[in-house]
Amino acid sequence: MNKIDLKLLMKIAGMDGTPKGAFNIRKNSQLESRASSENIIITSKTDQPGIDIHIKPGTKKESVHIPVLITESGIDEMVYNDFFIGEDCDVDIVAGCGIHNDGPECSQHNGIHTFYVGKNSRVKYSEKHYGEGDGAGERIMNPQTVVHLEEGAFIELETVQIRGIDSTKRYTKIIAGKDAEAIITERLLTHGKQSAVSEMDVILDGEGANARIISRSVAQDSSQQTFYPRMIGNSKCFGHVQCDSIIMGDAKIRSIPEISANCADAQLVHEAAIGKIAGDQILKLMTLGLTEQEAEEKILDGFLK
Amino acid sequence: MNKIDLKLLMKIAGMDGTPKGAFNIRKNSQLESRASSENIIITSKTDQPGIDIHIKPGTKKESVHIPVLITESGIDEMVYNDFFIGEDCDVDIVAGCGIHNDGPECSQHNGIHTFYVGKNSRVKYSEKHYGEGDGAGERIMNPQTVVHLEEGAFIELETVQIRGIDSTKRYTKIIAGKDAEAIITERLLTHGKQSAVSEMDVILDGEGANARIISRSVAQDSSQQTFYPRMIGNSKCFGHVQCDSIIMGDAKIRSIPEISANCADAQLVHEAAIGKIAGDQILKLMTLGLTEQEAEEKILDGFLK
Repeated sequence: MNKIDLKLLMKIAGMDGTPKGAFNIRKNSQLESRASSENIIITSKTDQPGIDIHIKPGTKKESVHIPVLITESGIDEMVYNDFFIGEDCDVDIVAGCGIHNDGPECSQHNGIHTFYVGKNSRVKYSEKHYGEGDGAGERIMNPQTVVHLEEGAFIELETVQIRGIDSTKRYTKIIAGKDAEAIITERLLTHGKQSAVSEMDVILDGEGANARIISRSVAQDSSQQTFYPRMIGNSKCFGHVQCDSIIMGDAKIRSIPEISANCADAQLVHEAAIGKIAGDQILKLMTLGLTEQEAEEKILDGFLK
Repeated sequence: MNKIDLKLLMKIAGMDGTPKGAFNIRKNSQLESRASSENIIITSKTDQPGIDIHIKPGTKKESVHIPVLITESGIDEMVYNDFFIGEDCDVDIVAGCGIHNDGPECSQHNGIHTFYVGKNSRVKYSEKHYGEGDGAGERIMNPQTVVHLEEGAFIELETVQIRGIDSTKRYTKIIAGKDAEAIITERLLTHGKQSAVSEMDVILDGEGANARIISRSVAQDSSQQTFYPRMIGNSKCFGHVQCDSIIMGDAKIRSIPEISANCADAQLVHEAAIGKIAGDQILKLMTLGLTEQEAEEKILDGFLK
């Protein structure tokens, strides 16, 4: 791996060289390196591009890293990764995709991640997207994430896209069984002429299921963002959707949530706000010696943390 | 007018006989009675069913009542009413439709109301829908309301549908100019197998425009409700959407709002909640001597007031 690869790996997965435990590094549509552990077995799919990750029941305090790197111009890949997580696990899964495109052609990653989370298991899943490079070629990422939560299962799903992705269409679907819980945190910054669409379906099927969506975004320059977070309650359940967006320059933001109750014991709440940075916040930081631009960056950093 | 007519008039327009000022009473698709005033002139349209209401500039503290009664089974009407309100007015407009259907056939009222509200004018518009009768025939109301607000104009739009309407599809559109303001209050109760769909587009076009949507609903039995309140900010403006629903029995409620900012100085906020009546609220009233059902009714009354 070269300098660019290492920089991308740090940006998207916080990886400083080879990680501990199981991992699978994909580079320019090829397997770069892989390691399974005793409890986490990674195998290539034989019928389509992608991998299967089997995590044995009872696996605790282990992690698996599966970053994807694209450093060539003109790549267009579709990858299917399936996660089979046994009962009573407690694992961290770190995904993410970094594109360095110096060329004239578009480079694109499409990934479909499907999780089967066993009874009473806890999963922390994080996925960072990052793009860079001086070429005119676009950097595009279209991730789909589908999560099946069995009874008492829990997932914390964190997605981050900060700078460099020209176009993204995200789709996230969670089906929560009895007493299952999901926390979805989305952070998104677009600039230039970028566009981002994020669609979510959170289906609270089981009694006692609960979910929270926390979405924070910043749209700068003439970028465009559209959000469709949908929360559907089919039983005695609790769901909360919270979307906050900062709009700047000539940007446009649409937020179109849905809360649907199909049961009188479903309790669903939604809040959304779109606005610019408050002038007095900038002023306060400027009196502490920051320039207007530094103050703005400080506020945006805090907002997206 | 007979006893049923008078009861309906009281229910939908708070009218105890003939009102003061201008009015137009429509009954079973025919003109029942009409009066213009010096400043408010009502004329029948010549090209299609409906009336034109011209309100002279500077008209203040006057009102116009335009209730619609349907007491026959099998009526299906489409009515176009246009309101031309001059500058610097301050008027109350009371509409509403009551259907008493004792027969086997469906009785249906479709109304399209269009308002042109002149510079700096204030309008209070209220519209109540009510249905009754022992027949198997359905009672259906599909109102459309379109409001053009000129610079500095204000409208308070209050719609109420409480009991008796089997099916309703409401559409409300407001286009607000510079410094114009709209307050939209919607109250809706459905029961039995009723269905209600309410769609709104509030377009904040002018600088300084602001709008609030306050929607409160109760869905009982196996009734269904769907809400699409949309607020679009095209300039420096402020918009607030608030939807609260109480769900009971086997009812279903979907709330699909949209806030869209096309300008960095647009500030838009949305809040929605769906849930059942809090158990401790009922308990508290029961300790004061109310039965459970009385407590429930008391809470619903308060919620829809």
